[in-house]
Amino acid sequence: MTTIIDGKQLAKQVNAATKERVTQLGQRGIVPGLAVIMVGEDPASAIYVRNKHRKATQLGIKSIVRELPATITQAELLAVVQDYNQDPSIHGILVQSPLPTGLDERGIVAAIDPAKDVDGFHPLNVGKTFANLPGNYPVSCTPRGIMTMLRSLNVPLKGKHAVVVGRSMIVGRPMGALLLNADMSMTITHQYSERLSDITKTADVLVVATGVAHLIKAADVKPGAIVIDVGMDRDEDGKLTGDVDFDGVFAKVGAISPVPGGVGPMTIATLMQQTVDLCEWSE
Amino acid sequence: MTTIIDGKQLAKQVNAATKERVTQLGQRGIVPGLAVIMVGEDPASAIYVRNKHRKATQLGIKSIVRELPATITQAELLAVVQDYNQDPSIHGILVQSPLPTGLDERGIVAAIDPAKDVDGFHPLNVGKTFANLPGNYPVSCTPRGIMTMLRSLNVPLKGKHAVVVGRSMIVGRPMGALLLNADMSMTITHQYSERLSDITKTADVLVVATGVAHLIKAADVKPGAIVIDVGMDRDEDGKLTGDVDFDGVFAKVGAISPVPGGVGPMTIATLMQQTVDLCEWSE
Repeated sequence: MTTIIDGKQLAKQVNAATKERVTQLGQRGIVPGLAVIMVGEDPASAIYVRNKHRKATQLGIKSIVRELPATITQAELLAVVQDYNQDPSIHGILVQSPLPTGLDERGIVAAIDPAKDVDGFHPLNVGKTFANLPGNYPVSCTPRGIMTMLRSLNVPLKGKHAVVVGRSMIVGRPMGALLLNADMSMTITHQYSERLSDITKTADVLVVATGVAHLIKAADVKPGAIVIDVGMDRDEDGKLTGDVDFDGVFAKVGAISPVPGGVGPMTIATLMQQTVDLCEWSE
Repeated sequence: MTTIIDGKQLAKQVNAATKERVTQLGQRGIVPGLAVIMVGEDPASAIYVRNKHRKATQLGIKSIVRELPATITQAELLAVVQDYNQDPSIHGILVQSPLPTGLDERGIVAAIDPAKDVDGFHPLNVGKTFANLPGNYPVSCTPRGIMTMLRSLNVPLKGKHAVVVGRSMIVGRPMGALLLNADMSMTITHQYSERLSDITKTADVLVVATGVAHLIKAADVKPGAIVIDVGMDRDEDGKLTGDVDFDGVFAKVGAISPVPGGVGPMTIATLMQQTVDLCEWSE
């Protein structure tokens, strides 16, 4: 019997817990604040930003969306970030990616106060995660949400083998770090990996984040594996689909997250959770 | 025919290049400076520190060894680090590990100016390495030295599978990051890894850093693999040996680094190389 990992349902639980924490903070007169900076008018970014704003507002988080023209200079954008760094009512700052050409995204991310880096992309937080340092610090939201999904299954991870396909700074690399920190053997593969199928077939937990629709098929997975699909791809008919051939893989695996309704809702729920974390940690 | 990766010989080449760079800096009136801070009287640490001091002096690097009593407080030790952070004649600072109980080593490492972090242990530098950011920053010396050893073999790494056994912050984790950044598929395993042999047998490049003498035997390696042994263990007779059963593995693999004479000399040569890097980058 294959378990479908219902990200939508799990996100509801996470959001309910977040809302409860916001209420408790409110009783002490504290309101978590999230600043989302959007530069230019990328239509996909506009949708993502709107969804974040809506969810934050629903949960009682103060949400500021700062829309800036694509003509803004690096120095001007850095000044905006500095303002939010210094604003005590803002606990989380995120700069919606991608930035228009000409702006140095890495420089902007590095300018965010690491204690307000709600996306977990600042190199200091990346380093703490990879070093598995103790203490409180933010972690990239998609991998953190995926860990929540894996833990919801109540299966032992320690000692098992996790394979991540894709090595982006947003998903693949921090995902690998978190799986390693969960005491799993951890493999990261990517577009240059030879004999990829031989590697993915050894995975007890397989996380796929490549942006290639249906890259992973039944022959590429181990029987009984847990498969997490981070893809948000379009099939030939323009329908939203994942990096995993869900229908082909389904009967063979132990658990699988669908697209849509898997990782997507968990990422935004984790962003909200982490905003409240940052608020609490700042106390 | 198995290649023995002669770390002693390769370290001589690296040191010769470093010495040449020091000479060139000297012609501009610049002397690279290394400060080694040693707290307490651990006998092994004393040997390591003396070796570093001797090698630095041989290469024309200004070497300061600051010996501090085991009774020093965290605040006093932080003040010493701050002094070197502000001293323009010092380009690299390292705190010899382990520190006596009662001192917070992580806090001390985090206090080193990341631009003078010659060991590459500061979380900001760890994060930059794991994120594969462009630009100049120090990297943990043992893994960096191992990359020099691998590159000296002139075999393609891209797309091949690297397996690291051990996940310490000094070797295993940064080693994995560098192998991933070299476009290899990258696996990190550790003491909790199940079916370890099944994983190590898939490695085209196998790096072993566990501190367990002769953990890896012929049955654990792929024919033709490149094996790097980071172990510095003692066998039953008290003789220095590695984590790999060299004699048993030798005929099966393509290349192997011996212990002693492999990784050890490369680590100290890389430390010197990186001191000069930090000096040049500070210009």
